[in-house]
Amino acid sequence: MTLNRRDVLAGGAVGAVALGATPGAAGAQPTSAPVDVTQRLADYVVAARYEDLPADIRQQGRRTFLNWMGCAIGGSQTDTVNKALAALALFSGKPEANLLGRTERLDIFHAALINGVSSHIFDYDDTHLKTIIHPAGPVASAILALSQHQPVSGAHFLNALVLGVEAECRIGNAVYPSHYDMGWHITGTCGTFGSAVACGKLLGLDTQQMRWALGIAGSQPVGLKIQFGSMTKSFHPGRAAQGGLTAALLAQQGFTASEIVLEGKDGWGQALSRTHDWGQVVDGLGIHYEAGLNTYKPFACGIVTHPAIDAAIQLRGEHLFTPGEVEAVELRANPLVLSLTGKTAPQTGLEGKFSVYHCIAVGLIYGAAGERQFQDAVVRDTAVIALRRRVTVQTDPAIGPEKADLTVRLKDGRVLTRHIDNAIGSLQRPMSDAMLEAKFTDLAKDILPDARIRRIMDLCWSLDRAPDVAEIARTAAA
Amino acid sequence: MTLNRRDVLAGGAVGAVALGATPGAAGAQPTSAPVDVTQRLADYVVAARYEDLPADIRQQGRRTFLNWMGCAIGGSQTDTVNKALAALALFSGKPEANLLGRTERLDIFHAALINGVSSHIFDYDDTHLKTIIHPAGPVASAILALSQHQPVSGAHFLNALVLGVEAECRIGNAVYPSHYDMGWHITGTCGTFGSAVACGKLLGLDTQQMRWALGIAGSQPVGLKIQFGSMTKSFHPGRAAQGGLTAALLAQQGFTASEIVLEGKDGWGQALSRTHDWGQVVDGLGIHYEAGLNTYKPFACGIVTHPAIDAAIQLRGEHLFTPGEVEAVELRANPLVLSLTGKTAPQTGLEGKFSVYHCIAVGLIYGAAGERQFQDAVVRDTAVIALRRRVTVQTDPAIGPEKADLTVRLKDGRVLTRHIDNAIGSLQRPMSDAMLEAKFTDLAKDILPDARIRRIMDLCWSLDRAPDVAEIARTAAA
Repeated sequence: MTLNRRDVLAGGAVGAVALGATPGAAGAQPTSAPVDVTQRLADYVVAARYEDLPADIRQQGRRTFLNWMGCAIGGSQTDTVNKALAALALFSGKPEANLLGRTERLDIFHAALINGVSSHIFDYDDTHLKTIIHPAGPVASAILALSQHQPVSGAHFLNALVLGVEAECRIGNAVYPSHYDMGWHITGTCGTFGSAVACGKLLGLDTQQMRWALGIAGSQPVGLKIQFGSMTKSFHPGRAAQGGLTAALLAQQGFTASEIVLEGKDGWGQALSRTHDWGQVVDGLGIHYEAGLNTYKPFACGIVTHPAIDAAIQLRGEHLFTPGEVEAVELRANPLVLSLTGKTAPQTGLEGKFSVYHCIAVGLIYGAAGERQFQDAVVRDTAVIALRRRVTVQTDPAIGPEKADLTVRLKDGRVLTRHIDNAIGSLQRPMSDAMLEAKFTDLAKDILPDARIRRIMDLCWSLDRAPDVAEIARTAAA
Repeated sequence: MTLNRRDVLAGGAVGAVALGATPGAAGAQPTSAPVDVTQRLADYVVAARYEDLPADIRQQGRRTFLNWMGCAIGGSQTDTVNKALAALALFSGKPEANLLGRTERLDIFHAALINGVSSHIFDYDDTHLKTIIHPAGPVASAILALSQHQPVSGAHFLNALVLGVEAECRIGNAVYPSHYDMGWHITGTCGTFGSAVACGKLLGLDTQQMRWALGIAGSQPVGLKIQFGSMTKSFHPGRAAQGGLTAALLAQQGFTASEIVLEGKDGWGQALSRTHDWGQVVDGLGIHYEAGLNTYKPFACGIVTHPAIDAAIQLRGEHLFTPGEVEAVELRANPLVLSLTGKTAPQTGLEGKFSVYHCIAVGLIYGAAGERQFQDAVVRDTAVIALRRRVTVQTDPAIGPEKADLTVRLKDGRVLTRHIDNAIGSLQRPMSDAMLEAKFTDLAKDILPDARIRRIMDLCWSLDRAPDVAEIARTAAA
């Protein structure tokens, strides 16, 4: 098959059938026919070499890894992780693998679980915007643990990470939005495949074994959206990491499974989605990379608030006013902003994430909206409360959810305005490497010493030159 | 709510709405409204005491346990188990729990997995006929392992076993057949709930924790029908056991989850089935027991062949002819018999299970159709081949699949006939306790010494008088 890059970006030969369809409107029938989907995906990932990865995809892989580590370290001291460890750590096997940001070592299955949980707690990890998959959690958690069981070079690791992300995002593309609309938390369901592919790659599976690994992974989808707001949401990427690791290890030993789990009758696609665009999985493999479309959140709250926060931070940085000088703040934005984040008087940090008023206030006061701007103390701070009371929101469906207009009226009569077309962190305006470092540092600074934080980030940027990835895991432990 | 037994058996107050509907024809909408399903189930299992179990349900629980142990011991020496152990045993934690029929000890999670796998390999375990759930695997595997981590009395164990089976079968009733038709292997999906309930009961969870345990279980459905014919089919009950055990242990530590996972928006029911009859879960709890409707297979092959085998064994037992005296054998049966088990010349033991010709031949020659009648050597035996070639099958849709007419014409001119209305092992003609013992003995006799087999069966029959269930697990190890 010959496909140029434009064909691929437009959906590719097989996928083109479905592109014109209204998402989710096609009923229970597949929207494109099966085309040896599982086998072609397995063949690709088995053959794909580090040397084949384009330079921009390698850099995106390093960014994905660094962002994931920062989130996992940042989440490592939470009640969620403490409770999971209280329940499970006593059953751990040989303590081969580190927990990021913590002192404990556990067997690779439990380490994969806990690091996966940690990395998702703040909902601050990476996002594949087309599917809302958070790709790194299930994949990186599994292969970092596996790298402490057998030596893995950084180049091999980076290749496995990219391939795992590629597999889960492509499978997600094939079933989104029907799969998501049914109630599935897509990060855990597709993530199990991503973990299986990445672990299978590190284990050197052949194509037969890789098909089995995908098969065993398909029998273990994890995650329902009903868990949003509970600790179990973060359990999903961790358990997906475990499931994929289990699948790859079993397949390595010849434990058989369906070899057409994605597209076959009574398979994963049939059970978990009403529509299927299988061309999204197989078209342009090795030419177009979904892993290159990963994004990173600059702000520790829902993406719908990001244009407003971005505008607030820009105006503060340029005009250097103090909170006391602000007379009024006016936001014009899409109605989704108020329907999702319309809390006017949040009482806790978590509620603050659902208050665009709070989000704008901390943007104006701190020039940031990281995890620490959503601590309970900040939400209850009198200066923050005073400023957020001066914020009003006017909604207009004509304004896209990726856009915002913010006006700040100062007491001296100045009127400052900023229009945002795409917020920082979007595909159009990605976070710079320096911004990712600042985010990492902010997440890790109360947990690890400054020099260690610098060392971990350097190891992430030079990941593919590392002789043994285990060093990174050890360095990122407390 | 007051319900008499007849109301309950007819579907009960809430469930009655759906009883008239054609199964699966109701589209994507629930067929009965949510009624605090998860909470009511949790409240019931937390409150239910051993003392509340009727005597017949206790005895059914003992039969379920004995049958499960026999199947797990019988499956313990297979390639499937060997491969799973080769992949996973080196990651085991503290070796607290026995593997049935084997010498290894593993941590409770791995023991639950392996015993669950073993017990399903021959497809010879128990069956809840309304849903085709194999109830014991996910539940017994988990709680037997947990009983080797903390002391558990036999009465407490039996109660937890019954409650776990009750929960999974009732949840299965609520979504069958839509859930099954979508592609799910219902044993693994509903089994995770059964395991969570039973483990939660042994851990003494309160109702809040039990709701969380059900919630965490709901995020981990296991199993697709596409795996039938591969080793991963047996992986399903084992992994379900692990998932439920994980859920209960996490919930015990206060790890939060949705408290309405079954009936809520974006919950398990919405994602995994198109129809829902929630009354099946909550109506008549503690009055009517689905656990009392468990059945046990007398023959190690698909249930559709059982009436024919039953007839063959009856005729052989009554007339004492030898295979060489048989001129012809004629079966009249439902068309399903040929569409599912129509192989005329099976080459392997597994293929023999899909050959009603082989099934009838071994019934006539051995007076049995246990696992050893489906060994490769038996399928290739010249006497068996000669006899199965004399078998012809005539199908008639007017004959129910639970019925059969078998005619054996002997060379001396005698014509022997037998009509079966319900095969042995059905709800109408359950296997006797003595038959269950014979099945257990047949499965275990190449693996454990005779005296040990006798001792294990005695321990199963007196399960609820055992001071510590761990003794049974130790006795059933090799």
